[in-house]
Amino acid sequence: MAKNSNFYPVILAGGRGTRFWPLSRKKRAKQLLALDGKQTMIQQTVARLLLLASPKRFWVITNGDLRRAIEKQLPRLPKAQVLAEPVGRNTAPAIGLAAFLLLRENADAVIGMFPSDHVIADEKRFRATVERGAELAAAGENIVVLGIKPTRPETGYGYIEAGNSLRGEALRVRRFTEKPDAAKAAEFVAAGNYFWNSGMFLWSARTLANALREHLPNTAPLLAQIATAFGTSKFAATFRRLYPKCENISIDYAVLEPRSAKGEQAANIFCLPADFGWNDLGSWTALHEHHISKSKPPEGNIIHGAGVFVLNARGNYVHAPGKFVAAIGVSDLVVVETDDALLITTRQHAQDVGKVVKYLDEKKLHKLV
Amino acid sequence: MAKNSNFYPVILAGGRGTRFWPLSRKKRAKQLLALDGKQTMIQQTVARLLLLASPKRFWVITNGDLRRAIEKQLPRLPKAQVLAEPVGRNTAPAIGLAAFLLLRENADAVIGMFPSDHVIADEKRFRATVERGAELAAAGENIVVLGIKPTRPETGYGYIEAGNSLRGEALRVRRFTEKPDAAKAAEFVAAGNYFWNSGMFLWSARTLANALREHLPNTAPLLAQIATAFGTSKFAATFRRLYPKCENISIDYAVLEPRSAKGEQAANIFCLPADFGWNDLGSWTALHEHHISKSKPPEGNIIHGAGVFVLNARGNYVHAPGKFVAAIGVSDLVVVETDDALLITTRQHAQDVGKVVKYLDEKKLHKLV
Repeated sequence: MAKNSNFYPVILAGGRGTRFWPLSRKKRAKQLLALDGKQTMIQQTVARLLLLASPKRFWVITNGDLRRAIEKQLPRLPKAQVLAEPVGRNTAPAIGLAAFLLLRENADAVIGMFPSDHVIADEKRFRATVERGAELAAAGENIVVLGIKPTRPETGYGYIEAGNSLRGEALRVRRFTEKPDAAKAAEFVAAGNYFWNSGMFLWSARTLANALREHLPNTAPLLAQIATAFGTSKFAATFRRLYPKCENISIDYAVLEPRSAKGEQAANIFCLPADFGWNDLGSWTALHEHHISKSKPPEGNIIHGAGVFVLNARGNYVHAPGKFVAAIGVSDLVVVETDDALLITTRQHAQDVGKVVKYLDEKKLHKLV
Repeated sequence: MAKNSNFYPVILAGGRGTRFWPLSRKKRAKQLLALDGKQTMIQQTVARLLLLASPKRFWVITNGDLRRAIEKQLPRLPKAQVLAEPVGRNTAPAIGLAAFLLLRENADAVIGMFPSDHVIADEKRFRATVERGAELAAAGENIVVLGIKPTRPETGYGYIEAGNSLRGEALRVRRFTEKPDAAKAAEFVAAGNYFWNSGMFLWSARTLANALREHLPNTAPLLAQIATAFGTSKFAATFRRLYPKCENISIDYAVLEPRSAKGEQAANIFCLPADFGWNDLGSWTALHEHHISKSKPPEGNIIHGAGVFVLNARGNYVHAPGKFVAAIGVSDLVVVETDDALLITTRQHAQDVGKVVKYLDEKKLHKLV
């Protein structure tokens, strides 16, 4: 795909990412962190799409806590296209607004919706998949979701049930399912025609706008009105006034699930199986595993520090930049240290980190969240 | 005992205390740390003796890395009486030098030798025991050791085997033993007449000087010569020149063990059973237990931080002053954080901390030791 196509990446970057506390904070959410390499997650997200679209084609939807930092991290993107939601309204209004904005610019715009905080190992294959998806999205009223072949019975993701009919390598989508319990997840993996919902979608701005008009009839006109004000002196006020009135709902619940209920043929939703080393880095444990898969340390320790002494220690993840770290006789721990906080937990309990943030919110310990 | 008696406390403060790394360093050894309360260990050591001796009676033997810091921590003590050994020569030359120095000042001087880094819960009872020991030491050629009733088959201490003959509450010492193995330690505890060697001794300067002349015939004259130079312009040079020639040996090996081999009657060594809540804080684990015995937290967590969130966590010791600490799903860990280092270990492995210091020494990472 040449850069002069109709392709526009829209990066959703409003997430708070509490699961990477104490490193992630309200004003320094996961997508702003360099969890994997020198670039931050959102910088990587943009970088891997720059061969498909020039910087001026990118849009970022984030919030007021993060906008400034994102502008700094992505200096090549037009500042006006880094939008801060006045309030969080989940993904449907966010991507919907992008659709109405892009329709004004290009009636044939094809939107790629991308989370801002995932890692992708094989960028070349990623770009090929996105190109294929964009073609499919451009050819009619098609909705394309990138589906990840599941490698374990993960209960933290939504699943896509694919039908048998094929269109190139794309599969028709039969059904979107919510996060399953462990037994269901195991069934899905065994069945072979289930994919993880990656949160990456491709569709034309027109298709998306029409879908919103159909499924969110109250919200769509509000988004259209906000888009109309874009570029005028009234934009900020209009955005602030109307966006809170939009329905607080994910694009999955708002459009994809009801649409898929129409049946495979009518829904026109396609799953493009994606095999490019995707990882959403949903927790410290996921990050640990990601690092292990890259560097394969013999004892499974990933220790970021100024120096390391390890004795009888296995499977630990330690983040303490600038410090000499000594790990003795410990296994499967996650220890993360920042200027003002110290997290000590296990690989198994790392998903409970959100509870710390909840506690800190309740105690109004704002500096720590 | 009135302060105008012949009693002189001599504080041995030359230890490096590697077992409290990363908090303890060469220039900030254990005795300089406030591990237990607001005062440092050496400040506590002096404070609990100040009712028995005025500040000008105290002597401190330390090393060049620590002298300045000790002088600062103990501003009421005469600076000239804080001596820095040119090289470490273990306890025999250190306490021996004190004996020769004090003989010049007071022929009837009674020395109390005290480690600088132990905790004692019942200071009143401690002082009563020391007073009793000093009386006993003054009454002839007696050597008095404070013996701790063992509460567990500890293999990290030397043991004193007491005889049956009594002199007041004092027992004659039959034998000093080295650190036993676990089976021996259990036997000792079961036997009932064994005590832990606390490292606290009382004897007259004359008795001690004579013992050194007998057991360390080469070293004693060197110490006498150094003592003679004290207060003159030649002292520093004499100390530096002669002290390295002294034998590198503990007072236990040099005097107490050979003396006790003479038999109970001839040796004149007495064990004064001491029951004043003694703890030598030999490791992070010992410190943890000491704190638990004082504050009795229901889940056994001792966490020093600016704030704490605990979930499914038991028996952990965390030292991270100034930081909010979150401990989730972890048990029996020891985590200690300083400006430049982070130790992560377990209660069981805390005694291996010395191996980190050894490694850092070998790698010449001087800033970290």
